[in-house]
Amino acid sequence: MSVTAAKGFAAAGGAVGIKPAGAPDVAVVATADGRPVPAAGVFTDNLAAAAPVQVSREHLRQSAGHAAAVVLTSGNANAATGPSGLHAARGLCEVVADRVGVARHEVLVCQTGLIGVPFPAGVLPAVGDVVDGRGPGKAAGRAAATAIMTTDTAAKEAVAHLEGGGAGCTVGGMAKGAAMLAPHMATMLAVLTTDAAVTPGALRALLRAAVDDSFNTLTVDGCTSTNDTVLLLASGAAGPAPVDRLGEAVAEVCRSLAAQMAADAEGATKMARITVAGAASDAEAHAAARKVADSLLVKCSLNGADPYWGRVVSELGSAGVAFELDRVSVAYGGVAVCAEGAAAPHDATAVAAHLAGRVVEISCDLGIGDGRGAVLSCDLGHGYIDENRTTS
Amino acid sequence: MSVTAAKGFAAAGGAVGIKPAGAPDVAVVATADGRPVPAAGVFTDNLAAAAPVQVSREHLRQSAGHAAAVVLTSGNANAATGPSGLHAARGLCEVVADRVGVARHEVLVCQTGLIGVPFPAGVLPAVGDVVDGRGPGKAAGRAAATAIMTTDTAAKEAVAHLEGGGAGCTVGGMAKGAAMLAPHMATMLAVLTTDAAVTPGALRALLRAAVDDSFNTLTVDGCTSTNDTVLLLASGAAGPAPVDRLGEAVAEVCRSLAAQMAADAEGATKMARITVAGAASDAEAHAAARKVADSLLVKCSLNGADPYWGRVVSELGSAGVAFELDRVSVAYGGVAVCAEGAAAPHDATAVAAHLAGRVVEISCDLGIGDGRGAVLSCDLGHGYIDENRTTS
Repeated sequence: MSVTAAKGFAAAGGAVGIKPAGAPDVAVVATADGRPVPAAGVFTDNLAAAAPVQVSREHLRQSAGHAAAVVLTSGNANAATGPSGLHAARGLCEVVADRVGVARHEVLVCQTGLIGVPFPAGVLPAVGDVVDGRGPGKAAGRAAATAIMTTDTAAKEAVAHLEGGGAGCTVGGMAKGAAMLAPHMATMLAVLTTDAAVTPGALRALLRAAVDDSFNTLTVDGCTSTNDTVLLLASGAAGPAPVDRLGEAVAEVCRSLAAQMAADAEGATKMARITVAGAASDAEAHAAARKVADSLLVKCSLNGADPYWGRVVSELGSAGVAFELDRVSVAYGGVAVCAEGAAAPHDATAVAAHLAGRVVEISCDLGIGDGRGAVLSCDLGHGYIDENRTTS
Repeated sequence: MSVTAAKGFAAAGGAVGIKPAGAPDVAVVATADGRPVPAAGVFTDNLAAAAPVQVSREHLRQSAGHAAAVVLTSGNANAATGPSGLHAARGLCEVVADRVGVARHEVLVCQTGLIGVPFPAGVLPAVGDVVDGRGPGKAAGRAAATAIMTTDTAAKEAVAHLEGGGAGCTVGGMAKGAAMLAPHMATMLAVLTTDAAVTPGALRALLRAAVDDSFNTLTVDGCTSTNDTVLLLASGAAGPAPVDRLGEAVAEVCRSLAAQMAADAEGATKMARITVAGAASDAEAHAAARKVADSLLVKCSLNGADPYWGRVVSELGSAGVAFELDRVSVAYGGVAVCAEGAAAPHDATAVAAHLAGRVVEISCDLGIGDGRGAVLSCDLGHGYIDENRTTS
C-alpha cells in the first residue's frame, strides 16, 4: 500500500491513450469523501515550468493550501505547449473536479513525458472514467503508482507509521523517477498522503524539509526538469500528530522513494553514495558531494569499477568550496586510497571487491572543518545513452 | 609548422618511458638562442592544481614573465602526488635548464595523464637527451605536438600570419585536448609561440582574452582539470607588432586549436555549436549556451540525431538567466522548431538532414535582450564511456 495506506484516500490508475501502446497513463488520488483537505507542494525551479506546474501552484494559492484530488498523466509532459497546454492542464483538473464534486482549484495536476508535444485533449472524457473507478486499498494504490511510470522499470511506493506521539497516523507515497538522476533533468513526481491532522502551513514547511533531505540529495533539485513536483495531502482521519514526528515520517517515505529512484535510474548498474566530511560547512560539503556525483568521468569509472580516485580529487578541487589539496583523503568502501592529497598504500583487492558490488561508497574528507553532506548517484553506462539518444 | 613556425624557436619530441608502450611522451619548446623571452600563462582554476601548474606559476612570478623553454610530458599528470610530485616537476625544469643554459625558473612545465600516480623521476636523464635533439622546422614542431597526445587521435597545430601592421610576424601553436570537452575535466594543454616583440604585460593580457574567446567557449574553463595550461612565448625575432593585431592572431590560433579539440573529443561523432541570442547580457547568453552544451540529455539526442528541442528549452529554463518561456525560439540548422515557447510547424526532413551531419547548429533566442554567446560541444556516445570506464 502506498498513497492509499493512510486513512481517507482512494486512488485509481488506467489507460486513456496518451501513451501509444495502451499502457496505463493516468492516475488519480483523491480524498475518500471528496472533501478538500490541507495540501502542500514543492515544485521545480525551472523557469520553463510545465503547464501542470503552473496550474498546481495557482490552485494551491487559490485554495489557500487545500486539495481534494490529484490527477497525474504520463507520456506527455505538457511542457512548452503554449496557451493550449495551460488550457489542457486546467481541463484535466476540471474533469476530475466534476467527478469528485469539488471546485477546479481544489484539484492538483502532475504530468510527465515528452516536452513540446501538444497534449491530446481528446482523452479528457476517458480520464473522467478512470476517476470514477477510484477506490481504497493496496491494489488501487499500486494501479496509480504503475500508471505514472515512464522509463521506470518498477513502481515506487513507500509507507511509514508514526509511533509514540501520533501513533495510529500513517504516511504513504508513490513516485516516478528514472532518467539519470544526477545531473538533473529527471522528471520526478511524487504524491504523498497522510491521515494526520495538520495545518496547511505546517504541512508546507515539513514537506519542504523532507524534500531537501531526500529527493534533493539525488541532485534532482533546483536546476531540474520542467515538471518536477512533490505533493502531500493530509486527510486528518487519524487525528492530530506532533508536527516534528509527522515530518520525520514524511522524510522517511521521501527517502525510501528517493532510494528506489536512484536504484532504478536509466541504464544504471550501480548506485553510489558520495559523502563529504571535513568541509567548511554542511552546505559546502553538500556542494562538493554533488560535484563528484555529477561528474561524467566519475560515473564512467563507477561503470567500469575502476578505482581512479584522481577524478574524485579533481572534482573536489573545482567544486567552488574551501579546499587544500594536501588535507584531502578519499576512501572507497571504507578503504583509504588517498591521504594528504596523494596516493595511500591500500589493499587493492578489497577496493576492487567493493567496486564490483552494486552499491559503492565514496567517502571524502576535506580536512578543513566540520561540514558534512551526502549525495546519492549512479554510474553512466551504455544503457543510459541507448535509452536517451532517441525519443521515438 | 606550428610552435616552430615563428622565428626564433626550436622544438623536439621523444619517448622516455613515461607511457608504457614506448610512445612519444616528452616534448620541449625552446628559444633558438637559449635566451629567456617574454612569456605568459593561463592556468586551471582547479584548487587541486597539479605540481607542474604550481611550478610554472611560481617560475613566471620569479622571472617576471619570462621563459626560455617549456617542457611537456604525457602519460602522467603529476597531480595529487604530494611533495615528491613538486620535486619531480622542478627536476624536469632543472634538467631542461641545464641543457638550454638558463636558470631553472626560466623553464615552464606542463604535464598530462593519470592523476595520483607518482611521477617516475628516473626518466629525467632521458628528458635531457630529448632536449639536446631540439631543432627548428616543421618536423620538429610536429614531433613535439605528437608527444603531448594522450587520447587524442591526431596532433593539433595551427599558424597565423599578421598582415598590415606587424606584417612579417607569425603566431604558431600546438595543443592536446580530448576527453569530452563539456563538461570540463578534459586536460587541455597548449603552447603558442610568436616572433613579435611584445612586453610580458601585454602578452599576458592578450593571451587571457584569446583564451576566453576560444578554449573557454569549449567549456574547458574555470572548473576544469588539475593540469590545464596555455602558454605563450614571444621571441621578438620579427620585430614589434601592434598589440591588438597580435592579439587577433593569437586568438585565431587558439580558436583553430579549440575547434580541432572539439572535433577530436573522446568518442564524439558530432560537433555542436550552441548559440544563444536575445539574452539579457552576453554573460547570460554564454551561461545559457554552456548549460545546453553540458546537458547529458542534449548530448544523447545529438548522438541519436534526434530533434528533441524540449531538452534544449528545459536547460535554458534552468540556466540561472533571465528567461520567459513564451519568448523562446529554437532552430536546428536554421530551421525553427520552437517559437514562442511551443512547437513550430517546420520541415522535419530538413531538420533530420541537418542532424545527420557531422556539425550541428543549435540556435536559441531568448527574446529578452541583446546578449549573444556561443559554445562548442559534442555528442555523448558509447565511445566516450568505453574510453573512460577504466584507466588500465
